[in-house]
Amino acid sequence: MIRAAAARMAGHVRRTPLLHAPLLDRIAGRRILVKAECLQRTGSFKARGGWSAISALPPEARARGVLAFSSGNHAQGVAHAAAAHGAPCVVLMPSDAPAVKVANTRAYGAEVVLYDRDTEDRDAIGATLRDARGLTLVKPYDDPQVIAGQGTVGLELAEQAVKAGVAEAPVYVCCGGGGLASGVALALETLAPGLQVRTAEPLGFDDMARSLASGRRQRNPAASGSVCDAILTPTPGELTFPILSRLAGPGAVVSDDQALRAMALAFTHLRIVLEPGGAVALAAALFGAGLPDTVIAVATGGNVDPATFATALERFA
Amino acid sequence: MIRAAAARMAGHVRRTPLLHAPLLDRIAGRRILVKAECLQRTGSFKARGGWSAISALPPEARARGVLAFSSGNHAQGVAHAAAAHGAPCVVLMPSDAPAVKVANTRAYGAEVVLYDRDTEDRDAIGATLRDARGLTLVKPYDDPQVIAGQGTVGLELAEQAVKAGVAEAPVYVCCGGGGLASGVALALETLAPGLQVRTAEPLGFDDMARSLASGRRQRNPAASGSVCDAILTPTPGELTFPILSRLAGPGAVVSDDQALRAMALAFTHLRIVLEPGGAVALAAALFGAGLPDTVIAVATGGNVDPATFATALERFA
Repeated sequence: MIRAAAARMAGHVRRTPLLHAPLLDRIAGRRILVKAECLQRTGSFKARGGWSAISALPPEARARGVLAFSSGNHAQGVAHAAAAHGAPCVVLMPSDAPAVKVANTRAYGAEVVLYDRDTEDRDAIGATLRDARGLTLVKPYDDPQVIAGQGTVGLELAEQAVKAGVAEAPVYVCCGGGGLASGVALALETLAPGLQVRTAEPLGFDDMARSLASGRRQRNPAASGSVCDAILTPTPGELTFPILSRLAGPGAVVSDDQALRAMALAFTHLRIVLEPGGAVALAAALFGAGLPDTVIAVATGGNVDPATFATALERFA
Repeated sequence: MIRAAAARMAGHVRRTPLLHAPLLDRIAGRRILVKAECLQRTGSFKARGGWSAISALPPEARARGVLAFSSGNHAQGVAHAAAAHGAPCVVLMPSDAPAVKVANTRAYGAEVVLYDRDTEDRDAIGATLRDARGLTLVKPYDDPQVIAGQGTVGLELAEQAVKAGVAEAPVYVCCGGGGLASGVALALETLAPGLQVRTAEPLGFDDMARSLASGRRQRNPAASGSVCDAILTPTPGELTFPILSRLAGPGAVVSDDQALRAMALAFTHLRIVLEPGGAVALAAALFGAGLPDTVIAVATGGNVDPATFATALERFA
């Protein structure tokens, strides 16, 4: 399925570079290879899953349109793929989503419906819209075609690691519901068994790390309260958790300040723009203790409000 | 020579991606393809020329070491290549060069000697150092091997343009002394004659544009006074000017504010970090009048002080 998704995406989704900077390695005390998914179309890996899911729909369903729930990156990935396939697209976004993500989702041609995270029922609003218009819900992670799409990051990584002479390394992946982490883990299982996925999450939103440790899906106590807005999901996915439970190592957890510092270091040494939730894997690779000499991090997204980015620079660059 | 330089660089210099964003195109009113040389090792295309020149030196000269004059990007390119070749490296930098460039040049292992632009004679200091230690001067642009190294950007661009379906387009290139612009022009002359180099310079430092218009090398009235520090050279190179005179179209000129706005747009839509002098070609492509439907811009560097970047975001993002 991952290979089939890659074939459907060819020419529409970018093969992102694996970046590396000697001065960054010196700060980390190890070699860090960074898969720059912030350079992906729409600014995050979500363009892959969105494309995979929509390109796999039957033509009639595509013509009726798609629906997505998202705080931003999944919204843009789905909106971009829907527009390219001529499919109508409705996106339900929390009203506190970063302005740049709302604006970009609209600019890709999607109809954005905002709701209040605390007082409104997202699922009920979505169900009404879906039933009224015959829309197909594109889930952000718990969908086999979405996982397969995100898994194409792993296909590329397996090739790029060989080229960089790396046969064994942990691969840190920013983790919300686990769609990217599980897709990458599946790709690497066959193609590069020496590369093991390690999820990275923000402090206080480490449901995946706790779930992996306990063997059962755990929930986060809060729904918001970290600058890493992109990856604040309540609990691991039903499909993604068993995959990661089988294939991933222990989950890493980083503080908001570590994510912001990783953004500043990526600015200075890699010249890429990361959002906080897209920088947690790099933060884990940079600041983790007892890691091996070579570590891979997937920098998952770069859709960040300028004020947040300026704060990261002011405090840590 | 360009092909030979590319062969010497293989595995040491990055093939940079040609980026593109639909929302950026909408703002510009045309399709803009951006060659992201800010993702190059050391953060600018100067890694190419430095590698080309040092790898072409006789072993004895390499062992004695190299000398460079630079406000920053050339310094880092030469320092990086020298370290990789085991060659001692001395860099003369103006004391007002951006701190990040001085720090990075030192971090690559070079000995940095600072001088005052207004009161000290750079050439005299350099000559003394060179004679005392038997160093070889690596010029920033007026050197055939440096021009050949920068020309490898053109080799890649010719292939990438074909892949993007572009046979005819202006190629805006940020221009100081003209090393990159002339190298790219030479590569494209043979490989992609429908792609024509257009130099881009900051307002008040448009010596190349005026020289191309008049047919004779002109000088800038001032040595400093633009935020585009990387490309404030006094006059076109002796070697580069005849090449550009024969091959380039009229030069473009952009204001500092347009360069800063291009940085902000590259942040939002391409998620890359550009320095002001590395953004003037993108600014010309974005804001120029009467341009064709498709335009290519080489985004030449991303070594920018955080405060300057934050200012660009605050004012224009």
